[in-house]
Amino acid sequence: MDFSTRIDKLKSLMNGHDGFLITDSSDIFYYTGYKPLDKGFLLVLKRKRPVLFLSPLENEAETVKTCDVVFLEKLKEIVNYVKNKKIGFDEHNLSQYIYSKLKTKVKLRPASDIIKKPMLIKDNGEIEKIKKAVKITKEILSYIYLLEKSEIEVSKEIKIEFLKNYVSEAFPTIVAAGKNSYYIHHRPNKKIITKKDLVIVDLGAKFKEYCADLARTFCFLPDTKRRKIIEDVEEIQSEIIDSIEVGMKFMELQKLYEKLMKKKGYETKHAIGHSVGLSVHEKIDTIENNMVITIEPGIYIKNIGGCRKEDVVLIKNNKVRMLS
Amino acid sequence: MDFSTRIDKLKSLMNGHDGFLITDSSDIFYYTGYKPLDKGFLLVLKRKRPVLFLSPLENEAETVKTCDVVFLEKLKEIVNYVKNKKIGFDEHNLSQYIYSKLKTKVKLRPASDIIKKPMLIKDNGEIEKIKKAVKITKEILSYIYLLEKSEIEVSKEIKIEFLKNYVSEAFPTIVAAGKNSYYIHHRPNKKIITKKDLVIVDLGAKFKEYCADLARTFCFLPDTKRRKIIEDVEEIQSEIIDSIEVGMKFMELQKLYEKLMKKKGYETKHAIGHSVGLSVHEKIDTIENNMVITIEPGIYIKNIGGCRKEDVVLIKNNKVRMLS
Repeated sequence: MDFSTRIDKLKSLMNGHDGFLITDSSDIFYYTGYKPLDKGFLLVLKRKRPVLFLSPLENEAETVKTCDVVFLEKLKEIVNYVKNKKIGFDEHNLSQYIYSKLKTKVKLRPASDIIKKPMLIKDNGEIEKIKKAVKITKEILSYIYLLEKSEIEVSKEIKIEFLKNYVSEAFPTIVAAGKNSYYIHHRPNKKIITKKDLVIVDLGAKFKEYCADLARTFCFLPDTKRRKIIEDVEEIQSEIIDSIEVGMKFMELQKLYEKLMKKKGYETKHAIGHSVGLSVHEKIDTIENNMVITIEPGIYIKNIGGCRKEDVVLIKNNKVRMLS
Repeated sequence: MDFSTRIDKLKSLMNGHDGFLITDSSDIFYYTGYKPLDKGFLLVLKRKRPVLFLSPLENEAETVKTCDVVFLEKLKEIVNYVKNKKIGFDEHNLSQYIYSKLKTKVKLRPASDIIKKPMLIKDNGEIEKIKKAVKITKEILSYIYLLEKSEIEVSKEIKIEFLKNYVSEAFPTIVAAGKNSYYIHHRPNKKIITKKDLVIVDLGAKFKEYCADLARTFCFLPDTKRRKIIEDVEEIQSEIIDSIEVGMKFMELQKLYEKLMKKKGYETKHAIGHSVGLSVHEKIDTIENNMVITIEPGIYIKNIGGCRKEDVVLIKNNKVRMLS
């Protein structure tokens, strides 16, 4: 990983700022290779080496080579570096408390989208890591057994499989069976999975900090209604994936999704997808080459259940490639 | 759990506020029994039933009985409830982005300490859950085998044991052997654990949302230096636990810790402890009955390693009881 290239890319976006203050730990990892365990502050100033401010408890970071490291006793130590400068900060990842401490001495400007922009375009090393995360996730999905087990039991087994593969969970695994599958962010409970249930499994491995995010819906003995829901989700997903083109706004995919859902008489309950990388959910505007995105249509009907299919696709050389 | 008692306790602390906006998911769980997966906003207004604002993706929360639930499409929907009111908010758990959206219409006042104050005093149900979390953690510590394994291997096995016991990890388990144990927040790596190493294992189960937090230092074949470090930590910990009294400031324990460390010629590298409950780290001011706190002295010497012993104690009827 060439961290200096990433820093240079960010510096090229300064446009009126004197620097950026980066506070999301995934973003700090992206620009330095070090992921803070506690709150960290990465300061990227024009024509200067980046400085990473960390809690003294993270004393192991003294070995970090990609930036200077300062162990911070008091917040105001940061101010000395940025006094009266115009600094872009991540408004979604800075608490009002810290903001209020800094703002009296520093000209802080919201710049979350700028800070995160370089992360949307993946380099080859990143793509390989996401592929590996997807591969492990698919493998686990292929051999996990669902029937006559509780949702909790299945989610526990999936978590153990992640650990055995030396990866972590990118987000809490959803196992939602029967009526529970109507709930989009259902937490696994004691419900026993039966053959007639629609069962949504939504999960993702995190391999070397890079996330997968997949969803599959199983139904071992579907009746006509449930079969129809599954087929409709698959059809909608194919149509959307086929329509992806470099240069189009991601919002166009959302509109297409809503149109296709409406045509089939379903209500749209969530977004069609998102970019994925060091975070599970990355905000995306225009689709470009070397982006990795998920497409996840879902149909949910009260007292029957839901069906969601989520796949990860890579946009490369103006073509769409399924990674999952 | 009697959530209305908790809400009443909070309402009794209003003192000049018209209400509180609670945004830390552990705090929302404390006051409602529902833990948001995504961002949630709990509004507690004088003489009104609490209102919990959630993402529509958390549609399962429609069954919550302890408060009204509103599925939020836009932030400004909250404003209708609090326009021109004086609202205490959690300045450590509200992003500058959301703050800036609300502050034009609402008189927001930092009130994190007030919102979190009731949580420091544990009821019997809470104490039982913490005891259970501590018990599971101790059991795992008693049978986990360290020698000739890598730190990563041991931490993986601990995580699997947590899962088998149907609990989660309260925080990422630290396994730090040999020179690595010098680093306070070390991340497990490939280092193989040998008999001569000091090995810090810092871990905690989370049982029904309540956390344990324990640390033990093992050394199977300690030389004189390492034995001395272990004995000194134990001696300092005993002396501090013996000195705990209801009514004293927690800061006095910190001062005593620093004094004892200095007397033995060691540098103090971190806090002596913290309150524990729904969060691993709760800020504590004065020690009172029905508080649960950890005492965790640590000695760290470069190129030799470190030793930390962390135990959980309950203050009950003016007496100190070890839970671990």
